[in-house]
Amino acid sequence: MERVLIKALEGSIDEKVMVKGWVHKINKFGQVCFIHLRDKTGILQLVTDDEGIIEQLKLEMAIEVTGKLVKNSKAPTGIEIKVETFKIIGKTYYDLLPFSINQRKIKASLEKQLDFPFMTLRRPKKRAIFKVQSEICNAFRDFFGQKGFAEIHTPKILASGTEGGSELFTVNYFDQRAFLAQSPQFYKQMMVGAGFEAVYEVGHAYRAELHNTWRHLNEYVSLDVEMGFITDEYDLMALEESFIKYLFQSLRDKADDALDLLSIELKDIVDIPRIKLTDAQDLILKEYGKKSPYGGLDGEGEKLICEYVKERYASDFVFITKYPKSKRPMYTMPDDSLEDMTKSFDLLYKGLEITTGGQRIHDYEALKKNMVAFDIDPKTFDFYLEGFKYGMPPHGGFAIGLERITMQVLDLENIREACLLPRDMNRLMP
Amino acid sequence: MERVLIKALEGSIDEKVMVKGWVHKINKFGQVCFIHLRDKTGILQLVTDDEGIIEQLKLEMAIEVTGKLVKNSKAPTGIEIKVETFKIIGKTYYDLLPFSINQRKIKASLEKQLDFPFMTLRRPKKRAIFKVQSEICNAFRDFFGQKGFAEIHTPKILASGTEGGSELFTVNYFDQRAFLAQSPQFYKQMMVGAGFEAVYEVGHAYRAELHNTWRHLNEYVSLDVEMGFITDEYDLMALEESFIKYLFQSLRDKADDALDLLSIELKDIVDIPRIKLTDAQDLILKEYGKKSPYGGLDGEGEKLICEYVKERYASDFVFITKYPKSKRPMYTMPDDSLEDMTKSFDLLYKGLEITTGGQRIHDYEALKKNMVAFDIDPKTFDFYLEGFKYGMPPHGGFAIGLERITMQVLDLENIREACLLPRDMNRLMP
Repeated sequence: MERVLIKALEGSIDEKVMVKGWVHKINKFGQVCFIHLRDKTGILQLVTDDEGIIEQLKLEMAIEVTGKLVKNSKAPTGIEIKVETFKIIGKTYYDLLPFSINQRKIKASLEKQLDFPFMTLRRPKKRAIFKVQSEICNAFRDFFGQKGFAEIHTPKILASGTEGGSELFTVNYFDQRAFLAQSPQFYKQMMVGAGFEAVYEVGHAYRAELHNTWRHLNEYVSLDVEMGFITDEYDLMALEESFIKYLFQSLRDKADDALDLLSIELKDIVDIPRIKLTDAQDLILKEYGKKSPYGGLDGEGEKLICEYVKERYASDFVFITKYPKSKRPMYTMPDDSLEDMTKSFDLLYKGLEITTGGQRIHDYEALKKNMVAFDIDPKTFDFYLEGFKYGMPPHGGFAIGLERITMQVLDLENIREACLLPRDMNRLMP
Repeated sequence: MERVLIKALEGSIDEKVMVKGWVHKINKFGQVCFIHLRDKTGILQLVTDDEGIIEQLKLEMAIEVTGKLVKNSKAPTGIEIKVETFKIIGKTYYDLLPFSINQRKIKASLEKQLDFPFMTLRRPKKRAIFKVQSEICNAFRDFFGQKGFAEIHTPKILASGTEGGSELFTVNYFDQRAFLAQSPQFYKQMMVGAGFEAVYEVGHAYRAELHNTWRHLNEYVSLDVEMGFITDEYDLMALEESFIKYLFQSLRDKADDALDLLSIELKDIVDIPRIKLTDAQDLILKEYGKKSPYGGLDGEGEKLICEYVKERYASDFVFITKYPKSKRPMYTMPDDSLEDMTKSFDLLYKGLEITTGGQRIHDYEALKKNMVAFDIDPKTFDFYLEGFKYGMPPHGGFAIGLERITMQVLDLENIREACLLPRDMNRLMP
């Protein structure tokens, strides 16, 4: 007999069926026992008065049950199975569950929930987050694939860091010291120059940041894009904007059940405003009396400019453009029309930066010169610079943090909720 | 004016168009110069007699050209552009190219080609390999996505190794020693138990193997599958077999241009034979007089059994089943019907193992006992074992090496040809 998923049962009323899953709830009323069976697609009521079965029952054990599927208007989903055969296929070995997962809420701290992902994720609402996340990945790959971008897989073990600095994890690579990639930046540029012209990658990135916050992970998934033969950074913003529109439509089409379960209604995406950083800083000062640090917005500033844009343009998104040279990496293309500025942008979404992007320097000499201006010895980046000697076209790109965009789409409070098994300063387990 | 890709030019005969790309070849005949322009979609002839343009030309520079597109039966593709405007958009800074990429073959060792990926990959044939590779990834995700498997992203920084042993890269994780994941094994099992039931992942895996061979990489992409509520390992082989069939159809549909360019004709996939390891060893001995090592096949043995299967069953693939306990990881499900054997399998393809798989032990006590039998302190794997206390269903899975299957589909000689930027004992660059 073939197992039927709970969601697919409806056509089998009055037939004998086999279901498999976990014991979600056990309710005894006198001789009769109602078991809520949970599989990945839903929850179903089972009924039995067999004492031999009832005394074996334990929450969360995995079972295989056959029996007749019948209508019962009193059952939570209107149908139930009268148990004929019962088999434990996954035994339990606990005295007490770490926390209860069949109540309205999990009564455990986020830390404890993260200690027991194999319990936490059994709640349909928790898994729904990752259904949405996987559809974000699908939308990303579909959109850029359809636009002729090539999918690439680049190394995460590097001989030297991308952005430099202290935020690097070191790896003992045979007899050498190596680093974990902070981003596929150099390699995605290299692949544009190698003739792919336009590339994307879904891959891990590593930041050894020495602080734990609600919006940082030390290992995260980066959705990276790089495109050659562009005119300037506005090509990239237009591209990202059309991706965001595609993404939201895609989530509506493919993750509607998960969104419903999480009570998320996706707004229509309106055209995303573009505001120069200095204008944004002025606006925040004028409208909210809040000063910004040089060359950027702080967390509070990001929230306020998003508030402003939301009221004024009804957009949850805003591009902040033209960051100063000293605040962007050495490979960022300067904007000669503005003193000291670059052709760069961030995308903020509901008060949080989810993307950094910009046009890159593509001329070998200009890039070398800029490295020196940044106090970087060009020799350190020989392997990167070399690729610029053979006709590197104008190009640029951006990256979207997968967990960040998931968190913002779903209004989660902590980025760890948008990561199956987060890594932070204190967490290397499970 | 909008750039038109070379492949899309055909509709624009006798119109003025803009093209962008790299200078692939320069042929001068008296006053006239024929330039082969290469973009990601093809190669096109440009014609000019402008001396100012001709003297600036250098191979591989990136240029932007406008001009009238005309038919010319003598041009390589039957069409050419009469150059009107010419702009260098990506300068060159070399005296000599590292090697020529516009001849019939690259006259450089594989090592040298790998030193200059931004040159090597400019050859359409080299990029075609990665078009096929990306369609393998797409087919993998589509197939398992359609079957209701959830895509997961699991950590690559771990507190303890998966398979144990010496083949681990260590990472300095703040004040702790950590490891790079050899596989997502523990986590994909955990996610099955966490209620996803069936999962897949496309992600990097790391093996610190102390030898360089034509079929090993130290960092590779693993296509991982894990499935709960199975009967035994034959469910998994059936699943992988239908994926392989889907994959080949998919490559024919979506990568036919790349396959043509690489002169690869995909055979129809026939049903894949399943042969017990001991039977395979006997066959090899009987048919070819070749002895096999205990519990496995060596490289020569893998080739011979594939030869045998190919002749006998016309299949490029063969499942070898039932490996002995001591040759499989501690989490492998024993096969009680056979002394000392496990419910495990390898998939060989054209003489090379591309998959290892099997059913896993799902009972907490049985797994703990097996760890002890393998001389492993269960405490080392507490974080993994814990997940088995709360009703872990029968499950199993397999993994396909992305570069390996790419290499075999395309009859490449070295796995490094199937990796954009390979990492091996001696190569951490570029």
